[in-house]
Amino acid sequence: MSTTHAQFINSKRLQDRLYELAQIGRIGDTGVCRLALSKEDYEGVQLVKSWMEELGLQPRVDHFGNLIGRLEGQNPDAPILMLGSHIDSQPYGGRYDGAIGVLGALEVVQTIMEQKITPVMPIEVVAFCDEEGSRFNKGLFGSRGIMGKLEEGELERVDKNGITRRQALLDCGCDPERFEESRYAEGSIGAFLELHIEQGPVLEAQGHQIGIVSGISGPLWLTVEMTGVAGHTGSVPMNMRQDALLGAAKIIVALNELARSEPGAPTVGTVGSLSVFPDSRNIIPEKVSFTVDLRDIDIDRRHRLEERFMTILVDVAAEHGLTYTVREDTNSEPRYCADWIKDIMRDQALQLGITIPELMSGPFHDSLVMSYACDYGMIFVRSKAGISHNPLEYSSPEDISLGTELLYRTVQQILQQI
Amino acid sequence: MSTTHAQFINSKRLQDRLYELAQIGRIGDTGVCRLALSKEDYEGVQLVKSWMEELGLQPRVDHFGNLIGRLEGQNPDAPILMLGSHIDSQPYGGRYDGAIGVLGALEVVQTIMEQKITPVMPIEVVAFCDEEGSRFNKGLFGSRGIMGKLEEGELERVDKNGITRRQALLDCGCDPERFEESRYAEGSIGAFLELHIEQGPVLEAQGHQIGIVSGISGPLWLTVEMTGVAGHTGSVPMNMRQDALLGAAKIIVALNELARSEPGAPTVGTVGSLSVFPDSRNIIPEKVSFTVDLRDIDIDRRHRLEERFMTILVDVAAEHGLTYTVREDTNSEPRYCADWIKDIMRDQALQLGITIPELMSGPFHDSLVMSYACDYGMIFVRSKAGISHNPLEYSSPEDISLGTELLYRTVQQILQQI
Repeated sequence: MSTTHAQFINSKRLQDRLYELAQIGRIGDTGVCRLALSKEDYEGVQLVKSWMEELGLQPRVDHFGNLIGRLEGQNPDAPILMLGSHIDSQPYGGRYDGAIGVLGALEVVQTIMEQKITPVMPIEVVAFCDEEGSRFNKGLFGSRGIMGKLEEGELERVDKNGITRRQALLDCGCDPERFEESRYAEGSIGAFLELHIEQGPVLEAQGHQIGIVSGISGPLWLTVEMTGVAGHTGSVPMNMRQDALLGAAKIIVALNELARSEPGAPTVGTVGSLSVFPDSRNIIPEKVSFTVDLRDIDIDRRHRLEERFMTILVDVAAEHGLTYTVREDTNSEPRYCADWIKDIMRDQALQLGITIPELMSGPFHDSLVMSYACDYGMIFVRSKAGISHNPLEYSSPEDISLGTELLYRTVQQILQQI
Repeated sequence: MSTTHAQFINSKRLQDRLYELAQIGRIGDTGVCRLALSKEDYEGVQLVKSWMEELGLQPRVDHFGNLIGRLEGQNPDAPILMLGSHIDSQPYGGRYDGAIGVLGALEVVQTIMEQKITPVMPIEVVAFCDEEGSRFNKGLFGSRGIMGKLEEGELERVDKNGITRRQALLDCGCDPERFEESRYAEGSIGAFLELHIEQGPVLEAQGHQIGIVSGISGPLWLTVEMTGVAGHTGSVPMNMRQDALLGAAKIIVALNELARSEPGAPTVGTVGSLSVFPDSRNIIPEKVSFTVDLRDIDIDRRHRLEERFMTILVDVAAEHGLTYTVREDTNSEPRYCADWIKDIMRDQALQLGITIPELMSGPFHDSLVMSYACDYGMIFVRSKAGISHNPLEYSSPEDISLGTELLYRTVQQILQQI
């Protein structure tokens, strides 16, 4: 499957850096734990910063904890072409998630510099702080920070050891009192490009090394609580029961059918978390609480499915004598990648001799935040068995090279077009 | 619905005792917490013992913690007619579960004594120790004790505070070293009769105050664990999933259909407990563990349903790419009440001017253990809304009186027949 076309980027250099970064916070042979703003994350940032310094990118860590290196443009005031992702990880994570987007961007800029090109606009390479959200249970921190999208109370969120985000930032040399200085003005960023592992099995199943992201789907997150009547499992006849778990089970089955109801659509619907009360083997379940995660790149279709889901809730509750409540936890709209960026990526892929598919991104990325500030594009690299957020996460050197080469060629094309 | 026929038993005396006992370990207005061998349970035993003493029943607490009062027979060596139940309760229980069987039996014996009848065989009134099993997570202790059916390690089971059952017995003046003295010899018990609340909604739904138990259904208890593959809820397409919770949901729905598949059959099938791993809203469930409780008074039908259930497991696992294990936790056979006892009960009910239904007991009772030692019979008293193991548990004075009167007349008839 690997391409044999000449590459401009230096695959070995990229792999060496990925390997070196993966030694910081390493778990076992292949895993990584670099929780945001931890000692390990700080060390990782310093390592990447040292590479940026070697290139003369005059890197800085801003007050949100973002690491930013800059290749100055012929016109320093032109809207910035920003490239990047994150290097913080899940507590039991892999070495590719986020990292290839930062080190890939660095490789792209280094390659541009080696070609003695001075871009028209400035190019910035960013490692955003705390994309994962594992430590303080709320992610996309650095990207939301520079966009002025932090919410009240975020600095007071605590980790498992009771350390506030404010303290963690201070410990890394950031100053929350000076956030304003690190904000980006409206219109100051021209476009954002992110290289990322797919974290899903689609590319592998289709036999593709890389893919163009069509957009980040908008998840609807609900919490449903169904309430019936408890009773002894031995003494309440089947036709007199109001079993909340039976109702929930029918909803789970129906949600699955709903998400599959339009053939070919990328809709996904999942119940990932469920709890039963009183959760005793000889008591008919009285209350069941479960989450619903419904995603689609087509918001109209998602809305239609939501309506059908609500009808199913009504019907199942009526059939089994249950009451229910639905709480909406998150309701995000899909954010589409810019057509002009996708067009460039597709053309450049053809020049590399490959046709690559478009696919939806289910997970969030820093791109989601950036999409509200500028046009954006994403390249996905194949994930082995679709595994991510796990030490078993793997993307081959060949696939990462190809994704980085496409990122490089896309940047080159953007520089030429503008 | 209440009968107006003359009653021999003293309903007010019975109600007064029920009320007085309910004050020990009282929760709110109507609830009770008398965990086995606790201070409250001990106090309850002492109270009932004092009533037995007043009647001259020379009560004793044996080494298993059972309270036993005895009305001597003309032939002290004749097989004993044993009447009773338990007075320990669930942690958040009601005042009727068990208690009406003990105090009802006491009322029956007192009425017999008031009639100046000396029975041929001895009659014993028993309050068995720890029927509920809440404290040490294994019940029917006292009845299993006298029958020599304790299992290894039972004395080392600990409650939530780390107290062993051995210590709890010692604290109540029992001596585990002397269990043998408290055993009943084979053939020493002629029959066992138990009055108990239904703990289910059947009698109420049918408009009956009391019912004759046909038998105690044999529960099959399984723990099923289904294993699929975790993945990001946003990035794994529906047709590539191996979602353990979806599989479990289909099993839950299928079990419900299975238990309802023979119209009119009293079969019940329940999933009461379920847990999900990793139980995260944006991760496809990898492992789901759940309990299965299947009961039927007809063991052949239950076996047929078990076979169909196993086939469903195979099919669902295959359809969704899951593996599974099934652990059998309990597999009891149904234990039928003696026909001759049921016949007497039915005749005596007719003489009271009522026809009463037969119904299966889903829950266990001390009678289940006794059924292996002698013939047994049970009378159920209507439970309001079928509620039990809850302070809301309620059976009316009229219904309890009627059940106790039937127990009295049944005993009288047995005395005359033998």
